[in-house]
Amino acid sequence: MSDIASVLKHLTHGVYVVGVADGEQTNAFTAAWVMQVSFSPILLALSINPKHSSYQLLKKSGVCSINVLSSAQQSMAAHFGQPASADKMAQGTWKKSVTGAPILQESLAYFDCEFSHEISAGDHQVVICRVREAGQLSAEGKRAMNYNETGDMDGSSDLYS
Amino acid sequence: MSDIASVLKHLTHGVYVVGVADGEQTNAFTAAWVMQVSFSPILLALSINPKHSSYQLLKKSGVCSINVLSSAQQSMAAHFGQPASADKMAQGTWKKSVTGAPILQESLAYFDCEFSHEISAGDHQVVICRVREAGQLSAEGKRAMNYNETGDMDGSSDLYS
Repeated sequence: MSDIASVLKHLTHGVYVVGVADGEQTNAFTAAWVMQVSFSPILLALSINPKHSSYQLLKKSGVCSINVLSSAQQSMAAHFGQPASADKMAQGTWKKSVTGAPILQESLAYFDCEFSHEISAGDHQVVICRVREAGQLSAEGKRAMNYNETGDMDGSSDLYS
Repeated sequence: MSDIASVLKHLTHGVYVVGVADGEQTNAFTAAWVMQVSFSPILLALSINPKHSSYQLLKKSGVCSINVLSSAQQSMAAHFGQPASADKMAQGTWKKSVTGAPILQESLAYFDCEFSHEISAGDHQVVICRVREAGQLSAEGKRAMNYNETGDMDGSSDLYS
């Protein structure tokens, strides 16, 4: 890990489960690189590895959900951080949203999004999404998980050149 | 504020002071919309209002610093959240970096960046920056400020259409 990589821990990111669907085919993955980028219209940016199968689903359908994990949902973060598998969506309760993207009912809050446009950035694609609908699903008092709380769960320390 | 806007508080953002310079002309502003977007190369994304004078400086010089504020630096966040003024840079200790961008010596950590490319996103520009150098400036034990800790300091609740 480079010197720069060790300083990156001071950046603040949350932990999210991104849900994608194309017709009956669904998938979901854990992501930390999500942020707001515009007030009007309300736009979010999601940086995603284009080699993942979820990226293809997102591009084909043009929709995704961004589900906020709370600090108590470490096992959820770990589960959806695994590679795609036949039974990955068996964990959690999923409900189809207005756009058709699956919403994780156990999340703290969700954003139901439509793909707007994107830009390549190194080994990722930065996808700009328009928020069509949003909601809070858990009672007040819970707080969003901070990515630093996950340790090196995702093995990202190996991803720096 | 729309219903969607009220749910946005569940997104996790840090608080940063972004330093820009073109020759002897310098400026700095508080930003929350910063995240990592690529492992290799290491790239950060910064969403910036293109109407701000700092955006022009960043584009002219092609460099900026991203300085991480700690949870104890609320007054620093407020100061650099104000509009540009003649004496804005009088607060804080600034040191010119390798790229020429000013580094805030009181910050928890900094990233010295070069402009790579950008994309428009609603009322902001998403600037992708390559990190040339980075460092931790404060002793261990301090933690980065979370944007939610600033309340509505920046008046952003008025910026939703």
